[in-house]
Amino acid sequence: MLLRMSTLFLRTLRDDPADAEVPSHRLLVRAGYIRRAAPGGFTWLPLGHRVFRNVERVVREEMDRMGAQEVHFPALLPREPYEATNRWTEYGPNLFRLTDRRGNDFLLGPTHEEMFTLLVKDLYSSYKDLPLSLYQIQTKYRDEARPRAGLFRGREFTMKDSYSFDVDDAGLDTSYTAHRDAYIRIFDRLGLEYVIVSAMSGAMGGSRSEEFLHPTEIGEDTFVRSAGGYAANVEAVTAVVPDPIPLDGLPAAHVEDTPDTPTIETLVAVARQLFPDAGYTAASTLKNVVVTLLHPDGSREPVVIGVPGDREVDAKRLEAQVAPAEVEPFTEFDKHPALVKGYIGPQVLGADSESGIRYLVDPRVVAGTRWITGANAAGRHVFDLVAGRDFTWDGVVEAAEVLPGDPAPDGSGPLELARGVEMGHIFQLGRKYAEALDLKVLDENGKLVTVTMGSYGIGVSRAVAAIAESMHDELGLVWPREIAPADVHVVATGKDAAVFEAAAQLSEALVAAGLTVLYDDRPKVSPGVKFKDAELLGMPTIVTVGRGLAEGVIEVRDRATGERSEVPVAEAAERIRAEVRGS
Amino acid sequence: MLLRMSTLFLRTLRDDPADAEVPSHRLLVRAGYIRRAAPGGFTWLPLGHRVFRNVERVVREEMDRMGAQEVHFPALLPREPYEATNRWTEYGPNLFRLTDRRGNDFLLGPTHEEMFTLLVKDLYSSYKDLPLSLYQIQTKYRDEARPRAGLFRGREFTMKDSYSFDVDDAGLDTSYTAHRDAYIRIFDRLGLEYVIVSAMSGAMGGSRSEEFLHPTEIGEDTFVRSAGGYAANVEAVTAVVPDPIPLDGLPAAHVEDTPDTPTIETLVAVARQLFPDAGYTAASTLKNVVVTLLHPDGSREPVVIGVPGDREVDAKRLEAQVAPAEVEPFTEFDKHPALVKGYIGPQVLGADSESGIRYLVDPRVVAGTRWITGANAAGRHVFDLVAGRDFTWDGVVEAAEVLPGDPAPDGSGPLELARGVEMGHIFQLGRKYAEALDLKVLDENGKLVTVTMGSYGIGVSRAVAAIAESMHDELGLVWPREIAPADVHVVATGKDAAVFEAAAQLSEALVAAGLTVLYDDRPKVSPGVKFKDAELLGMPTIVTVGRGLAEGVIEVRDRATGERSEVPVAEAAERIRAEVRGS
Repeated sequence: MLLRMSTLFLRTLRDDPADAEVPSHRLLVRAGYIRRAAPGGFTWLPLGHRVFRNVERVVREEMDRMGAQEVHFPALLPREPYEATNRWTEYGPNLFRLTDRRGNDFLLGPTHEEMFTLLVKDLYSSYKDLPLSLYQIQTKYRDEARPRAGLFRGREFTMKDSYSFDVDDAGLDTSYTAHRDAYIRIFDRLGLEYVIVSAMSGAMGGSRSEEFLHPTEIGEDTFVRSAGGYAANVEAVTAVVPDPIPLDGLPAAHVEDTPDTPTIETLVAVARQLFPDAGYTAASTLKNVVVTLLHPDGSREPVVIGVPGDREVDAKRLEAQVAPAEVEPFTEFDKHPALVKGYIGPQVLGADSESGIRYLVDPRVVAGTRWITGANAAGRHVFDLVAGRDFTWDGVVEAAEVLPGDPAPDGSGPLELARGVEMGHIFQLGRKYAEALDLKVLDENGKLVTVTMGSYGIGVSRAVAAIAESMHDELGLVWPREIAPADVHVVATGKDAAVFEAAAQLSEALVAAGLTVLYDDRPKVSPGVKFKDAELLGMPTIVTVGRGLAEGVIEVRDRATGERSEVPVAEAAERIRAEVRGS
Repeated sequence: MLLRMSTLFLRTLRDDPADAEVPSHRLLVRAGYIRRAAPGGFTWLPLGHRVFRNVERVVREEMDRMGAQEVHFPALLPREPYEATNRWTEYGPNLFRLTDRRGNDFLLGPTHEEMFTLLVKDLYSSYKDLPLSLYQIQTKYRDEARPRAGLFRGREFTMKDSYSFDVDDAGLDTSYTAHRDAYIRIFDRLGLEYVIVSAMSGAMGGSRSEEFLHPTEIGEDTFVRSAGGYAANVEAVTAVVPDPIPLDGLPAAHVEDTPDTPTIETLVAVARQLFPDAGYTAASTLKNVVVTLLHPDGSREPVVIGVPGDREVDAKRLEAQVAPAEVEPFTEFDKHPALVKGYIGPQVLGADSESGIRYLVDPRVVAGTRWITGANAAGRHVFDLVAGRDFTWDGVVEAAEVLPGDPAPDGSGPLELARGVEMGHIFQLGRKYAEALDLKVLDENGKLVTVTMGSYGIGVSRAVAAIAESMHDELGLVWPREIAPADVHVVATGKDAAVFEAAAQLSEALVAAGLTVLYDDRPKVSPGVKFKDAELLGMPTIVTVGRGLAEGVIEVRDRATGERSEVPVAEAAERIRAEVRGS
């Protein structure tokens, strides 16, 4: 295919768009690959659409290769199935809802678990029909509160979502592994760095779950890894829990005046003055943080989270634990006199207490641990308050932030923290959806058994952004060969008709050899502008036909390495073809 | 690619689905190509999705070949641009509207004129940038009152829509012709019979417009054609207008008692009794039909349509003329005493008359024609009422039905009527959208000129239905090679392991030769069921490996012609490859 710059629907921009926060967004807009069409909605321009379709092709080829079968659902879906699984409600404001002319409720599909479950139920009835993996590459909708970072977090985007159906857990494991392997091949082919991390299930509810994260500073997800090979989404990290301590012989709790100590810092300073030999640190204190849980039914509940004083409550970890409830800041101290701001202690907390406020603690708060914590009176704290003796809790919650150097839960060494963006998610759903929608098959003994499912997603449009984000330099985009919108960018410079003729001939020879060529045939554009555009647009091979032509050579440049070579015109087509095809 | 029936996500059905009205819908569901997912929304199952993608490929290749450039817009669009062109309102209940979490209005795009106009405005500014043709293959939404006929009329469907941008009318003509030629190539490749008919512009407003209709009894559109080559959508047919007749010397109008003549039939009978020598027929009468126009602003207006009494008012022709207003039956005679039901005459009508009710007449009502029509009193009619002398009108409207034998407007002979379904629409929009959204470019003289546009659509999912509708027999589907989900259907019959081995080897040899093979490897399914499935599924070539294998032959059958031949096993792969590839 030959794309001529003179007629290509393309305008490269000199300046960064005002609303672009991250390099991929800036560059994709500046290079004319995408254009904003709506809040969180982008239009793919011709070059961008070619990249998109290349990514889609890689995903499709690998899904087909693993034996998954492609189908395609509508995006506009009826309410009922999502009601049956409660996701109509659980999705909250993230779901686009609408009614048709008859007043029936519809939604724009965020994912399609329900629909796939019903489809398989519709067609299949026996264990002999399984295993089965189905996928689609489809437009998805989420009413994001804050669409951002261009294609990374939009309200309309393209996903490959697939679903596996098995008669038993061993089958699910096999299907899960097959998807995992396919994802590895996909991201390898896309040239996209990734880390496979253990993941929480979020609103999904199930068992094994991993994310393919692309490490990048601009990522919204934090993940951890140890030198020993442990890797997890920060939501999935579990604290290493100390052994409980026998309660016998522990000192009695005592309340002390600690004026003006509403923060951990001020409290520790006062505690050290009072008991210079105790070696108190922030970790000696128990910080009690009030939050409001917004439940899917609309009700609001104040809850106190107790964490060691050297850690903050990590909002994302907390949200993952309490989902589908959402977390909001707590402000209504006036309505809850039991809660003394800055001096909250566990003695007045608990579902069974007078306040009725639930108390959830960090897993490090085990029986026998001693804490300095609020005495529920301004300016007073209690010391040596022993967990399991002086106070109890309604539950344990992994809400404390993970700190660099924390031990990996599998003993593989200290953790380091990094940021990443989720590129793929594989997930053992188990029987949640099959149960809610009654997907059963007859097993070998003629008995009805509930099918077990997996759910697997790759962000196709997001992958384009991630590739742009990871592969660019100060001059522009640097596409890997597999997904570049064209294999070769031929630049004709100057005003010499012979140059344009040679460049056109070369372009056509390359097209005849099966390559896609972007040919800059613009007659009145200066070489400087053309070179700048070539760097910005980022084709992997840039060929310049210009002054060298008089000596019978053209220049071939590798966009990624910057390597240049002069090639005799007569050999150019074959040499370039071989370089592009790697043979 | 090898598709094995043993694992393919497919269930063929013996019985027709209860809700299927037309053969294509019945067969596509029975053969496991599509499945209903929502009212007017279908899921493509694996074989169906392959057909869909083949159609999409043909469309894309031909659009690329004509130089149109592919882009892709969101489907979820902001209200504002559609407000600027008034389509937010004009689309009425056919538009899916929704609000996001912030209360902003959105719509699901039915077509994308506004968005394309704004995109080009965003990037281009000079006549040098034009001509330009852009297209997308995209999911569209229309809240149809009555989704029907399966893929023919859904609420979510796939269209290729394209738009051309030119600096002047000559350019638009060229772009229009290029699209027309591309559409001819597309429908030829799809093997789909079509008639190109002149079309009304409907809600679009513009100039030249043609539809590609696929002739079929189940079509919703009526079109006409003459032996001399005239063809038009029935909405676009114009009446052949007689010359006006000088008013001098025409007899005076006279009112007669015509008791009990509320219908044309009864009126003609009485008129013949009164004036036996006048030769009165239904065509001598002027029938005045009251309808209510529902305007986009919500207002309702009674309007009287005058047509020769031998014709009914054709609702579709009327609607096309008055769009964007909609037509509703008129019932409020009690509120309009001037309108005497069954005896309405033009004497009391007209915007300037006392009643204020607009009167629109058929083009055949020219000055000097004489009519029998209502005298605005029960049981009375007026005779020899002369148009232009005794009554006037507010406008002319092409609302009378077209009858077989009517003369073609271009003099090419009498018209015949047929039914068809719209497969494609090409349309000179002109400057309507460019004006509404201020798309201007600088011309050669540095003067700002408004761009002129064309809009062109092909129903991609509808094309699948049309092909199924036109190519099937009593046994099932009969796909043309270009879009069949597989090139060859290999059926292994019996229980002999050697048969299955030979069939598998043949299938793999065909796949190695680049074909897609559907291989019926189901071990416990009877030959009868396998053959039935093969007919139903409709691959163009069906190969049976069975009893003949003992004699070293297999059977090759052409699904469309029914032709069978026996082929030696050793030559089978090459012979079949050659047949499929046509070389």
